[in-house]
Amino acid sequence: MSGASGDRGDPDGIDAGLLAPGWAGSPASASTSDRAFLQALIDAETALTRAWAGLSLAPAAAASALSAVTATDLDTTSIALRARHGGNPVIPLVADLTAAVGGEYGPYVHRGATSQDIMDTAMMLVARRTLRPVLEDLERTARALRVLAATHRDTVLPGRTLTQHAVPTTFGLKVAGWRALVLDARDRLAALRLPAQLGGAAGTLAAFASFGADDPQALVSSYARELGLVEPVLPWHTLRTPIGDLAGALALTAGALGKTAADVLTLSRTEIAEVAEGSGGGSSAMPHKANPVAATLIAAAARRAPGLAATLYASMAAEDERPAGAWHAEWEPLRELLRLVGGAARNAAELTEGLRVNADAMREHLGLNHGLIVSERLAVELAPVLGRARARDLLARAAERAVTEGRPLVDVLDEEPALKDVDLADLTDPARCTGSAGALTDRALERR
Amino acid sequence: MSGASGDRGDPDGIDAGLLAPGWAGSPASASTSDRAFLQALIDAETALTRAWAGLSLAPAAAASALSAVTATDLDTTSIALRARHGGNPVIPLVADLTAAVGGEYGPYVHRGATSQDIMDTAMMLVARRTLRPVLEDLERTARALRVLAATHRDTVLPGRTLTQHAVPTTFGLKVAGWRALVLDARDRLAALRLPAQLGGAAGTLAAFASFGADDPQALVSSYARELGLVEPVLPWHTLRTPIGDLAGALALTAGALGKTAADVLTLSRTEIAEVAEGSGGGSSAMPHKANPVAATLIAAAARRAPGLAATLYASMAAEDERPAGAWHAEWEPLRELLRLVGGAARNAAELTEGLRVNADAMREHLGLNHGLIVSERLAVELAPVLGRARARDLLARAAERAVTEGRPLVDVLDEEPALKDVDLADLTDPARCTGSAGALTDRALERR
Amino acid sequence: MSGASGDRGDPDGIDAGLLAPGWAGSPASASTSDRAFLQALIDAETALTRAWAGLSLAPAAAASALSAVTATDLDTTSIALRARHGGNPVIPLVADLTAAVGGEYGPYVHRGATSQDIMDTAMMLVARRTLRPVLEDLERTARALRVLAATHRDTVLPGRTLTQHAVPTTFGLKVAGWRALVLDARDRLAALRLPAQLGGAAGTLAAFASFGADDPQALVSSYARELGLVEPVLPWHTLRTPIGDLAGALALTAGALGKTAADVLTLSRTEIAEVAEGSGGGSSAMPHKANPVAATLIAAAARRAPGLAATLYASMAAEDERPAGAWHAEWEPLRELLRLVGGAARNAAELTEGLRVNADAMREHLGLNHGLIVSERLAVELAPVLGRARARDLLARAAERAVTEGRPLVDVLDEEPALKDVDLADLTDPARCTGSAGALTDRALERR
Amino acid sequence: MSGASGDRGDPDGIDAGLLAPGWAGSPASASTSDRAFLQALIDAETALTRAWAGLSLAPAAAASALSAVTATDLDTTSIALRARHGGNPVIPLVADLTAAVGGEYGPYVHRGATSQDIMDTAMMLVARRTLRPVLEDLERTARALRVLAATHRDTVLPGRTLTQHAVPTTFGLKVAGWRALVLDARDRLAALRLPAQLGGAAGTLAAFASFGADDPQALVSSYARELGLVEPVLPWHTLRTPIGDLAGALALTAGALGKTAADVLTLSRTEIAEVAEGSGGGSSAMPHKANPVAATLIAAAARRAPGLAATLYASMAAEDERPAGAWHAEWEPLRELLRLVGGAARNAAELTEGLRVNADAMREHLGLNHGLIVSERLAVELAPVLGRARARDLLARAAERAVTEGRPLVDVLDEEPALKDVDLADLTDPARCTGSAGALTDRALERR
Repeated sequence: MSGASGDRGDPDGIDAGLLAPGWAGSPASASTSDRAFLQALIDAETALTRAWAGLSLAPAAAASALSAVTATDLDTTSIALRARHGGNPVIPLVADLTAAVGGEYGPYVHRGATSQDIMDTAMMLVARRTLRPVLEDLERTARALRVLAATHRDTVLPGRTLTQHAVPTTFGLKVAGWRALVLDARDRLAALRLPAQLGGAAGTLAAFASFGADDPQALVSSYARELGLVEPVLPWHTLRTPIGDLAGALALTAGALGKTAADVLTLSRTEIAEVAEGSGGGSSAMPHKANPVAATLIAAAARRAPGLAATLYASMAAEDERPAGAWHAEWEPLRELLRLVGGAARNAAELTEGLRVNADAMREHLGLNHGLIVSERLAVELAPVLGRARARDLLARAAERAVTEGRPLVDVLDEEPALKDVDLADLTDPARCTGSAGALTDRALERR
Repeated sequence: MSGASGDRGDPDGIDAGLLAPGWAGSPASASTSDRAFLQALIDAETALTRAWAGLSLAPAAAASALSAVTATDLDTTSIALRARHGGNPVIPLVADLTAAVGGEYGPYVHRGATSQDIMDTAMMLVARRTLRPVLEDLERTARALRVLAATHRDTVLPGRTLTQHAVPTTFGLKVAGWRALVLDARDRLAALRLPAQLGGAAGTLAAFASFGADDPQALVSSYARELGLVEPVLPWHTLRTPIGDLAGALALTAGALGKTAADVLTLSRTEIAEVAEGSGGGSSAMPHKANPVAATLIAAAARRAPGLAATLYASMAAEDERPAGAWHAEWEPLRELLRLVGGAARNAAELTEGLRVNADAMREHLGLNHGLIVSERLAVELAPVLGRARARDLLARAAERAVTEGRPLVDVLDEEPALKDVDLADLTDPARCTGSAGALTDRALERR
Repeated sequence: MSGASGDRGDPDGIDAGLLAPGWAGSPASASTSDRAFLQALIDAETALTRAWAGLSLAPAAAASALSAVTATDLDTTSIALRARHGGNPVIPLVADLTAAVGGEYGPYVHRGATSQDIMDTAMMLVARRTLRPVLEDLERTARALRVLAATHRDTVLPGRTLTQHAVPTTFGLKVAGWRALVLDARDRLAALRLPAQLGGAAGTLAAFASFGADDPQALVSSYARELGLVEPVLPWHTLRTPIGDLAGALALTAGALGKTAADVLTLSRTEIAEVAEGSGGGSSAMPHKANPVAATLIAAAARRAPGLAATLYASMAAEDERPAGAWHAEWEPLRELLRLVGGAARNAAELTEGLRVNADAMREHLGLNHGLIVSERLAVELAPVLGRARARDLLARAAERAVTEGRPLVDVLDEEPALKDVDLADLTDPARCTGSAGALTDRALERR
Repeated sequence: MSGASGDRGDPDGIDAGLLAPGWAGSPASASTSDRAFLQALIDAETALTRAWAGLSLAPAAAASALSAVTATDLDTTSIALRARHGGNPVIPLVADLTAAVGGEYGPYVHRGATSQDIMDTAMMLVARRTLRPVLEDLERTARALRVLAATHRDTVLPGRTLTQHAVPTTFGLKVAGWRALVLDARDRLAALRLPAQLGGAAGTLAAFASFGADDPQALVSSYARELGLVEPVLPWHTLRTPIGDLAGALALTAGALGKTAADVLTLSRTEIAEVAEGSGGGSSAMPHKANPVAATLIAAAARRAPGLAATLYASMAAEDERPAGAWHAEWEPLRELLRLVGGAARNAAELTEGLRVNADAMREHLGLNHGLIVSERLAVELAPVLGRARARDLLARAAERAVTEGRPLVDVLDEEPALKDVDLADLTDPARCTGSAGALTDRALERR
């Protein structure tokens, strides 16, 4: 991972991810590290000065001087420690940046802004930078799933409900469903509009006017454009829809990927073994064991995302022009959500691209339960032949015999004189009990 | 409340809401009660039979017979108790409906469906029925806030950050922000697409084909149309995007309304008293006290919604064709979210329509802190006059004197010879320090 | 269910539980219904008046008159609807009780108390009444698990980690673990100390002195004794340790039972079928299917409890002498937690008492993976014989052959000349690879 | 911060805390960093080898060689990145440790253990190391609060409920309540019993026997003793009571400290200003502003802890002998809880030691609302004099006049002929309306 290994030479701002195999080394790891966040803060300050310069109210050289400062020039740990006094890292950062650009340009740093302007903007930059590879990984995943669904359009396996075999379905339909969720997640992430933040102390833009901006909104506009973020209608210091939208889209993505993981974990079980991860992870105690590690790590992310999203939703009820706690409670959970989703998306791409499918095992499992998996269809199809009540009774008796005698249902039924004209081989073939699975798969794959 | 009082004559399915003053008696109370949910289950079964009849595969009279059964004809409590055996109420309901329509039509009840088809569809019906009045209450709230924001476009009050006075703002801008959040919530709720559910045992539509439907998707289509719900591309038994979307939109709405409540609670404080609820609630121990009850109940809803949404997001990672637990864990949290948001929206409408504003108190509070609320502007405006460093020093000294001598900052500054040519009255008038508040308010109110 | 059916004759206060098969009909259903909560509110008011009478500051007849009023005499729905004005149901309840006891005794109702005194006390009463049968159900569960663990002390089955077979273990040890968790939960619930609440308007007991109590704490003491609750050191209106403790103990109980459910769900899978619930639930679409319904409902409870506990913990940060929202947000989540745990405990008792164990299936599964389940032991035991490196290489090759040739590992090893003196039958017998499982089981069962 | 600055010279394992002013630089920051966790992992491995050596089944020199390796000798980032393959950092760590101790001792590293043995043990070590200073900070906080409560035992201020003045109380009682919560938290944290983990692949201790341990439990015992952790009755790989207990105690602590923070934030408001933090934090835009930063950061921690605890409780329902996801989802939330509580405890200690109290402002605010704050007492005291109904009417009229005429209630009452013999000065003195506040404070301070 370039980001991580690049960090080796410099101690500042590393989040090594020792407890986070789910995202360590992923693109999200690099784009959300302390140092990456510090860079985003600097980028926001630079864009502000540049916007001032665009209005001829700051020297262009001040913006250039700022843009020459990078996160590696500053001491992340020191800033982190000094952040405590005022409650956020922007205050010490502004001091450091002012010192870095020198006396002439110092007064133009952070001009008219409040800490939250820079923090919120940096968070949106970090989100955008993290979401770009996430979207790519979701596309990769969707492509892999498309191939898998098409390949296994007609691969029959037991449909399972409440852990029990129910009726047959196809692996194609199952995978088409995974893909539908991935596309839902992609659509919700892609639809996010990430706004810049610039409002000044209480969101009135007052200081910008004091510093000479005739049209402060033009400054906001130019600042947002510089950063490639959306220009907000109002400063959103305490109008946290962008945070709520991110929380929802990220939690939904984690859940969507979590569905694939949950299925892969089930189908990977030693007794089921219908799928296996391409490169299962080893175990420290049992070297021969191939664990579904990617699915496990995605599942862990899906377990953690909802609680983090909940904290973000709760922060929407933010009093005043800047709340005492609700805002501060957003930073780490939002970053953590980005990391978890970033790691899960990468793991999902690799998992789905490498997934090995054992169609024979699927087919074989259809015969467990003595072929009773087709009994729903039999009940319906035999009703017109035998009458509804008689069909049900006959089937119930046959099912009981199949179970107690340990024989396939079709063999038991074969002995029934009443069914001698019925094509039992057809009726009890699970592959003929998959209903519209193929058509549904085709239909689902039309979606791009 | 008609729904609730109508329930008086019949014991079944009441949720009296004794512990829920936040939603008891609201439209959401009636539309989410056990009986309302039971009715939605019946509606789903009826629509299914009607869809069969539309394909000439069931007698129209069977559908009519079903539609003649209403929730009050059935015993909610008995169904609830019998639900335990199979884990959901559809199984006993189908038994009761089959009995209710009689032997001839009985076989057409629930034909080809699985319990989840009916439960999920009913949940979407209940959601739609609950969201309709919620959207109306949000529109009412937005209208009330528009009037309030326009009326107080230029009413100045202290902007507050981290509980402290920061710089002046306007009540109009604050209220315009509340309205923006309400419109964000409205837009997200209005954009929800609530799908019908119909997939059969494992989502393959197989049983529908067995029962004679040549094009099972046409049955799904007709069923959805009957119910006024969206036709799904795939059965979504374990593709829970609709639940995740509801969770997010409802949590965001609770948070959006929670912001208004948080501000009203702060501004209602005895020491602040800048606003008051039109009809504050009494206290059992202190009859004279007028409490901000509506804001309190909205705040309580905003505290509870995130945890419920988290449970729903976590349920997205649902294994197999029907999960053992994740699905069952959705029912009550989703209903509770609908109730909390329904109650909060109604309370928000009444709160905002009745809110009393004390502009004098707002104005007066600007003078607290000895007028230091304008010091940000002073620092900027005096810099060109005195030089930046000298302006800062002079202001720091003046601020200290104002605080220690207990005098207004303007009086202290008035004694400064260096400022004798400066129009201090203008510079220290908080009403002239509100920056773009007016313009931002106008701009925000353009949104419909 | 007596509680529920008793409700049939009277419409007030029913919570039928249509969406809650997990707790409908359980003892917790009856003890937490709206009507049961109403009764607890009345009990608190009665105890207060009785405490006054004990100080000779109220007529004994006033207490008797109050105690003669029962929840069925009042209109729960009406109280619920009128609760909205003041934000809690105590205000309308006091009005109704005052009317019910008549003009002479009316003034003694609710004397000196605040709504929160009565609400909090009622919540503790409801908690205590609900926890009693919960503790009994946990004891039942622990007893059933003791028998099961003892019976299957030496029943060998695959130990599973990350869904894969790891090394052998025993069903006895697994069940002893379930029991240990149940006892942990029991201990934490049993250790809860549920306090009465009585503080007056702001928790100073001032009104009690005004009404003539020379020693107001004596009134608190007597009130608590009347109710069988703990006397608090301080009024705890905003010192919510009792709520936090309940949240933690209940969430832990849900999680503890959830572990058993998670294992039962896995071991019940059609492909595994090592256990089955005694009376599995039917399916609406697939009459032959026996679902692990009790485990499913417990699993659903374990998914919901954490979010509810989170809301309660968050409410601990309660401002002032009574918070505006944090307190109101506690009522329904706490009740819901009690219900979920009550239902889960009952389901756990029935599930564990009826669990059917298929020791043959367990044994048979040990042979899946071609006997590789014993490879950890082989690697260790053969190292002294062959040398560490050679043993590892030989085993790796043998394992690969076993898998590719589809033969048991023991057969492949049997062909190895180097092992001709090794007792392979013993070394590859999974039943001899269970380490201390038996001793650990015995040790765990010593706990009472 | 020594831990953090010590990290400057070495890039591995830094968590700089840029987004975490609430805990950066606290003792918890150092004791929970990636490097500190890595050290705990090494400590666990060392203790295991030492335990083997104690049984004479490993050379003592192997343990010494291991104990000579420290976290700074290893590459945290590399381990973090390689952790992904197997899903946890123990696998690469064992490889690195084996290499570090050399060929002779390598085979004794990690002997018989599974990754979870080492991870869980390390987590308990990190918890214990973090809790020690937390307990000290809670004691510091409790001491500061004792002094504050004693000093202000009789300082009267408005009791506030639902944001409104209710009846008078004392600052001493309020602070005694804060202290009671802090002691509750301390007691729950101090009661935690943190167990070592050692079970081998599936918790049967089998590998330890294979490696020659006659009494594997003795190995567990010795391992736990080495580490100063509790010896567990059973391996607790999927019996997560220790995690649930930690979750609860930490969430309760965050909530307990959150109560103090919530009150300090309210009482610090510009309009109230009854307390101020000793060293309020500055603002980037408003240099004169002194913000209640410590309270804000504690409040943020209290908002985040519940969601993290919820994730941990949810992980208790862990299937099999090691779950695929539930275990992995614990690591970061548990560490984050430790950090948040560690930071909050430190902030609470500093906040309470430095809190400035403005008793004059408290006294003054009692006069807001025209003295109506004593109306509850008046109603009770005048009832015997005037009769209950007449007293209520008279007071209601007087209150209305006080409000509309803007005069103190006592002046209005003074004009009432019916009250000419009543000592109104006494009756309307808020300082005489504090009931048992003093006695309750004394009683609460008795607790140690």
